[in-house]
Amino acid sequence: MVIEIKHTTAKNPLYPVAKQVKTFTFDALPLQRGGQFGPVTLAYETWGTLNAAADNVVLITHALTGNTHAHDVERPHDTKVAWWNPLIGPGRFFDTTRFFVICSNILGGCYGSTGPSSPDPQTGRPYGMRFPVVTIRDMVGAQHKLVEHLGVRRIFMVAGGSIGGQQALEWAVSYPELVEQVIVVAATAALTPQAVAFSEVQRQAILSDPRWKRGNYQPCEGPDAGLAIARMLAMITYQSEESMELRFGRRDARQVDIASPGGYGDLGKRFDVEGYLYYQGNALVKRFDANSYLYISRAMDLYDISEGYLSLEAALRRVRSKALFIGIRSDFLFPAARVRWLAEQVSAVGGDATYVELDSPHGHDAFLKEWEQMTAALNVIN
Amino acid sequence: MVIEIKHTTAKNPLYPVAKQVKTFTFDALPLQRGGQFGPVTLAYETWGTLNAAADNVVLITHALTGNTHAHDVERPHDTKVAWWNPLIGPGRFFDTTRFFVICSNILGGCYGSTGPSSPDPQTGRPYGMRFPVVTIRDMVGAQHKLVEHLGVRRIFMVAGGSIGGQQALEWAVSYPELVEQVIVVAATAALTPQAVAFSEVQRQAILSDPRWKRGNYQPCEGPDAGLAIARMLAMITYQSEESMELRFGRRDARQVDIASPGGYGDLGKRFDVEGYLYYQGNALVKRFDANSYLYISRAMDLYDISEGYLSLEAALRRVRSKALFIGIRSDFLFPAARVRWLAEQVSAVGGDATYVELDSPHGHDAFLKEWEQMTAALNVIN
Repeated sequence: MVIEIKHTTAKNPLYPVAKQVKTFTFDALPLQRGGQFGPVTLAYETWGTLNAAADNVVLITHALTGNTHAHDVERPHDTKVAWWNPLIGPGRFFDTTRFFVICSNILGGCYGSTGPSSPDPQTGRPYGMRFPVVTIRDMVGAQHKLVEHLGVRRIFMVAGGSIGGQQALEWAVSYPELVEQVIVVAATAALTPQAVAFSEVQRQAILSDPRWKRGNYQPCEGPDAGLAIARMLAMITYQSEESMELRFGRRDARQVDIASPGGYGDLGKRFDVEGYLYYQGNALVKRFDANSYLYISRAMDLYDISEGYLSLEAALRRVRSKALFIGIRSDFLFPAARVRWLAEQVSAVGGDATYVELDSPHGHDAFLKEWEQMTAALNVIN
Repeated sequence: MVIEIKHTTAKNPLYPVAKQVKTFTFDALPLQRGGQFGPVTLAYETWGTLNAAADNVVLITHALTGNTHAHDVERPHDTKVAWWNPLIGPGRFFDTTRFFVICSNILGGCYGSTGPSSPDPQTGRPYGMRFPVVTIRDMVGAQHKLVEHLGVRRIFMVAGGSIGGQQALEWAVSYPELVEQVIVVAATAALTPQAVAFSEVQRQAILSDPRWKRGNYQPCEGPDAGLAIARMLAMITYQSEESMELRFGRRDARQVDIASPGGYGDLGKRFDVEGYLYYQGNALVKRFDANSYLYISRAMDLYDISEGYLSLEAALRRVRSKALFIGIRSDFLFPAARVRWLAEQVSAVGGDATYVELDSPHGHDAFLKEWEQMTAALNVIN
């Protein structure tokens, strides 16, 4: 992936976006929680070609700290440079010779779409906490504007994991007439209170960092320690007891020169798992905006597919898409049992829903790691 | 419980201790990680009477933020005033008409025993981070000095949960000739890397708080936000997905006036589970020292019963006590499967070990909540 930093009014100058990234700006988006917000820019990438009927579209939706770069044409075999790389491309499940594949950075993000780090046109300064509370429904509403702009008549498939899975589900409920198939990976109808709790601890670490300054930090002077701590905790919730045992056990860290968020020395020793978490914390700080983290993680918590409908059943009864739900055995953030339950609820109200479970020890993150199992699971919808 | 604040050289003036608390001071303790440390004061309470043979002793060992007050004679039916109240007293499992029950605050604690908030005799100021890294073995070594001081010839039983369970296990391995029975509740041979990771995120929240000042904070000017965040995360790990679903679901908070650690307003709404966690965070800040939290949680992580022995088997082969292991079905901090495995290992090397599992949804904390199940489980040893 060739990374370059683009400076446009709509784009955040801090975080690198792939050179292929395009943008679309529209005036205003009605928000689920009331009022409207704009202008809104969405950054997006596409692969493949829109057909004459404009109905061969696959929309890929990304997770919390994800971006538009789901696939890398120049390095299609590298699993590090693009987050769903092995699933996208010629002959792959999301076949770019057949489909026009779109992936946009979500509203609230920091990879080219309008988010809290974008300049508020009224002041010229970043929105910070003046950014509105946005929801998964709002993110999907913005994506809908984008696909309209691209001339799409019908979406063949929406697919994503985690918050991306919430978006896929939301597409099926909000725009049932538009979407032929949805693939909801490691996502549920609403977060468990335990997951909300983990999420809130992460946000409090950011909000308590004095460098956060009520969201008004300068670029490169943000709440790095708080964001690193948030990421450390998030990484635990993306894995599992089993995978951490496999990866780290109780081994000593091989490297002890990675600074911890607190910057204080080790108490007695450094475990391998600790060094790993410091590394992950530091890595996120370099590539992600703390305020975006607050807003997007909050959208994840607030998400409840039934909101605005008389009941969960009423919401799910709207689904017309063929729906594939993929759970992960060892996921404790979006437990497999709840993914399965959601699939059953869709079936119960007459929907065409299938549930498949990845037998992976890797926890929530399995949808970004288990390429063979993911490919096999995805193919269940065909 | 009548609380009064005692001011003695050995005691920490900040944290209230029960009026019945006694202290014992000795010159020096050899430390597991090398060197020795002293003087050491242990605060303790006792219930019942030491018999003539000095062998009717029950030693109760407490968890991370626990204290000496396992039982309250004046309010024996109140489960809030003393942490194992319903299990201790006349006619109860730890029968104070038969046994001389002792509970001491652990080395490193802040409820009257020597810890990082105690004054360093060389400077008159709190040790802070000049306090040595102490281990569960060191805590038990200090308790051993205490029981010697009290003229105890033989300990009938050592019992505790969580870090208290680690101490009970350590007693059985370090002083096999002294201990007739041990009850290890919700504790394992060593923490999982996932649990170490949760623990380290908690410490980083404290270490990153600028009020921590490398441990040299003044009384009442400590890292409150960091400690509150640590406690919020800890409370998640003490419960379970299931219990949080039962207690909180996705309900709105009934109270929204409890300040969060970051002191910033709610993003969109406040969930009940969030209000609960803020409350728990604030409550701990009022009653616990942040440096003690660092040292004791680290002792929990570092604990490995096999340390210093050729193997786990070699360590467990030392056990002469009748041993009861109690796991909790929904505990993910000290998973039941690992408690069971430990019991099996003790049996495998010829020990007398029994395993019982509490069928509770309440996670790790069940040993402080499920009084009927706990009583039934404890009685398995008889």
